[in-house]
Amino acid sequence: KATVTTSPNIETQKGPLAYAPNVPALQSGDTVEVKFDVDHKLFEVKKGISFTGWLFGDSLPGPILRVKVGQTVKFSMTDRSNDSSMKGMNMAMNMQPMPHSIDFHAAMVNPEDKYRSISPGETIHFTWTANYPGVFMYHCGTPMVLLHMISGMVGMVIVEPGGGFPGKVDREFAIVQNEYYLKQQGDRYAPDTSIALKKQPNFMAFNGKVGQYIIKPIHVKAGERIRLYFLNVGPNNISSFHVIGTIFDKVWLDGNPANQFVGMQAVLVGPAQGAIMEFVLPEKGRYTFVDHSFANAEMGAAGVFVAD
Amino acid sequence: KATVTTSPNIETQKGPLAYAPNVPALQSGDTVEVKFDVDHKLFEVKKGISFTGWLFGDSLPGPILRVKVGQTVKFSMTDRSNDSSMKGMNMAMNMQPMPHSIDFHAAMVNPEDKYRSISPGETIHFTWTANYPGVFMYHCGTPMVLLHMISGMVGMVIVEPGGGFPGKVDREFAIVQNEYYLKQQGDRYAPDTSIALKKQPNFMAFNGKVGQYIIKPIHVKAGERIRLYFLNVGPNNISSFHVIGTIFDKVWLDGNPANQFVGMQAVLVGPAQGAIMEFVLPEKGRYTFVDHSFANAEMGAAGVFVAD
Amino acid sequence: KATVTTSPNIETQKGPLAYAPNVPALQSGDTVEVKFDVDHKLFEVKKGISFTGWLFGDSLPGPILRVKVGQTVKFSMTDRSNDSSMKGMNMAMNMQPMPHSIDFHAAMVNPEDKYRSISPGETIHFTWTANYPGVFMYHCGTPMVLLHMISGMVGMVIVEPGGGFPGKVDREFAIVQNEYYLKQQGDRYAPDTSIALKKQPNFMAFNGKVGQYIIKPIHVKAGERIRLYFLNVGPNNISSFHVIGTIFDKVWLDGNPANQFVGMQAVLVGPAQGAIMEFVLPEKGRYTFVDHSFANAEMGAAGVFVAD
Ligand SMILES: [Cu+2]
Ligand SMILES: [Cu+2]
Ligand SMILES: [Cu+2]
Ligand SMILES: [Cu+2]
Ligand SMILES: [Cu+2]
Ligand SMILES: [Cu+2]
Ligand code: NA
Ligand code: NA
Ligand code: NA
Ligand code: NA
Ligand code: NA
Ligand code: NA
Ligand SMILES: [Zn+2]
Ligand SMILES: [Zn+2]
Ligand SMILES: [Zn+2]
Ligand SMILES: [Zn+2]
Ligand SMILES: [Zn+2]
Ligand SMILES: [Zn+2]
Ligand SMILES: [Zn+2]
Ligand SMILES: [Zn+2]
Ligand SMILES: [Zn+2]
Repeated sequence: KATVTTSPNIETQKGPLAYAPNVPALQSGDTVEVKFDVDHKLFEVKKGISFTGWLFGDSLPGPILRVKVGQTVKFSMTDRSNDSSMKGMNMAMNMQPMPHSIDFHAAMVNPEDKYRSISPGETIHFTWTANYPGVFMYHCGTPMVLLHMISGMVGMVIVEPGGGFPGKVDREFAIVQNEYYLKQQGDRYAPDTSIALKKQPNFMAFNGKVGQYIIKPIHVKAGERIRLYFLNVGPNNISSFHVIGTIFDKVWLDGNPANQFVGMQAVLVGPAQGAIMEFVLPEKGRYTFVDHSFANAEMGAAGVFVAD
Repeated sequence: KATVTTSPNIETQKGPLAYAPNVPALQSGDTVEVKFDVDHKLFEVKKGISFTGWLFGDSLPGPILRVKVGQTVKFSMTDRSNDSSMKGMNMAMNMQPMPHSIDFHAAMVNPEDKYRSISPGETIHFTWTANYPGVFMYHCGTPMVLLHMISGMVGMVIVEPGGGFPGKVDREFAIVQNEYYLKQQGDRYAPDTSIALKKQPNFMAFNGKVGQYIIKPIHVKAGERIRLYFLNVGPNNISSFHVIGTIFDKVWLDGNPANQFVGMQAVLVGPAQGAIMEFVLPEKGRYTFVDHSFANAEMGAAGVFVAD
Repeated sequence: KATVTTSPNIETQKGPLAYAPNVPALQSGDTVEVKFDVDHKLFEVKKGISFTGWLFGDSLPGPILRVKVGQTVKFSMTDRSNDSSMKGMNMAMNMQPMPHSIDFHAAMVNPEDKYRSISPGETIHFTWTANYPGVFMYHCGTPMVLLHMISGMVGMVIVEPGGGFPGKVDREFAIVQNEYYLKQQGDRYAPDTSIALKKQPNFMAFNGKVGQYIIKPIHVKAGERIRLYFLNVGPNNISSFHVIGTIFDKVWLDGNPANQFVGMQAVLVGPAQGAIMEFVLPEKGRYTFVDHSFANAEMGAAGVFVAD
């Protein structure tokens, strides 16, 4: 059973966590203790476009958690949306404290219990065990769920098979693709569910920030085998993920090695689906990666690998 | 060859049929006689939202037919859109008698012959044999097909492998997902193809009625193995089907056990595609199921399993 | 390394090329020399709807190239957008000479080098080797890429496994599905990226022309085994490809025999994905094929096979 506590909770983050595109290392042991929190904070999507993000782990996407099949996650999360640092800010900017929750797609639990909403200042504690390998979404499940998702409450869990993912790779990266539905409010923006209900985003991003890997590409070496942990958090549209100049040697749909495709030019990943792609950049150069649903690439779902 | 008769046809329904979420039992024998009809009838999508449905088997979705590979279906259908019960109703409500037809995706036949339109009062008779296992769509194929689909002329055929689906399950349910494109006309609504051409539904449903399984959840027991026969009748958009709180242990794309995926958090099902998902609800509780293309969930593609 | 030359280049086309729905034969040898060019030319989408196409091989889609795994393609392409035949035409019609490029999804090369833009009158030369079997997209990669795609710069490469595709078939056809985003300009139309960014096409086509295979169906014989090389060039939306009256016996996602599905009613193909489908038309008749994302069928993604 989940428990909810109200005593001050000072620790804000622990566990096998990292921020994308980095991937955390596994922790040993049958149980891993994991904590991250929720806060409300101005988030810059791209230069000149900011909105009040509702964030897991102070980040969009939230921190990546990595565990392996059989490990039990002893999880806790504090809703810090009433954080004093926010007190002076404009309440029209969606900074108001509010309930939040977390739903792990990697878990098999009673959502009514574990995924329930907590109030600002409260901390929820529950445990779950990873049963299936893959790349899974987590997100806030507090109604209106669509609003909590487009406000940034999304993230990735990587679950390794008990014996690790098969095969050796040289490099690992994580990419979370998300859609923005923003409406201007003065010199800021705000997530707008009426736009989201039409499924027509105005910005798209890899790891939350439009164009960040065009400005600062991800560097690898030509010939290295790269494993990409990919998650489409939507909330609405498919991604047809593609790396210009190469072909995915192996693809594991939802990140499970049993769901293998080979030799793919593009991987169709639905909203709330994951995939692991392995590939090589064959020679030195710049390799742009895109959502080949190309309007999405033009709206920001584009980045660059540089092979040195 | 299909034949069309005009003599009065009193029998309205027979065969291994059931209404979703229920699933019919197989009938034994090499041949199964199947009949269901078409009528026009006011259909309530949700409280306060009704439109003139064009319905197979007096229902939306139409009745589920279940056969096995090798069985021959001796099918007949009467177009009762000229039914006397309709005579007094407002003709502006799309109640007018009109030709209809049926196209079974489970069949391999000449569509020009078997799937031809019949006039109000006529009965079409044709036979077809199930060759491939799976979860297949049927629908009216009379132009403008898009209009006949969004008016409700959609349904599911389950075809079992000759030896039955592999593995044992405790419970079976059927879910048909569909999109509504409705425009207000006085105190009623009418399907609108101009909205449907933009692929932006205003309501979504599981088994025809918005929110019905939130109001009256589907009850199972914790730990039971559940097999879901899922069909996305669209007509336009993908579904990313997900059950909150669990993971699909097995997924058979288009319902064919040869097309197996395992450990999926969400199943991407295109319009006119089916899937079979097997899963367990791990503990007592309420498990919401959604199209995780989350605007669709907000528009009505959501329901609840209660695990007792 | 790619080289770019400016000397007059008279040869316009060579290599194992054909225009869809036809499929070229393989050429023998370790190396195949391939040339096709780019020109700008009025293209009729359907009666009364023309726009200035930017075309590979004077066609939309461009010519289909067929090679096998291990073959090296010695490719060259001239940008003939400054072709004298255009000189007298209305420059408002997007006939202006401009840079273009080509990106082969079948290749594994440095895009910065091989896929770079060339100026009108220039010829680019580069070689690449086919490493993976499948049905791959090629397209112009010059920004704004979305505009170059919707202006027609798309095509298919078929890569056979070294030993050929497994199994025998009687007939082979190629279908490229594309979306049009056109805005009226006087008595002509022009591709409009603002519409394309909303992913709401106004016309859809198989092999470039709305309704062409309704007007002139593709003729086969009942019982023949047909292999379809299918490519969804998008640029934006999924296709749920279906042939009315039959079931796909085998489907190879992205055209790779390792990615096999069986018994599919519809194949979900993302933008920039391919598929090979094998099927039989069981008896004489007319079999309409559609994108069963049915708004797309109504907008033109429909054709007919006649089984004689
Ligand atoms: Cu939330
Ligand atoms: Cu159909
Ligand atoms: Cu109909
Ligand atoms: Cu979820
Ligand atoms: Cu591309
Ligand atoms: Cu171009
Ligand atoms: Na904070
Ligand atoms: Na590429
Ligand atoms: Na009736
Ligand atoms: Na879940
Ligand atoms: Na020319
Ligand atoms: Na069919
Ligand atoms: Zn929240
Ligand atoms: Zn605790
Ligand atoms: Zn570097
Ligand atoms: Zn009808
Ligand atoms: Zn009969
Ligand atoms: Zn109960
Ligand atoms: Zn170009
Ligand atoms: Zn050359
Ligand atoms: Zn003929």
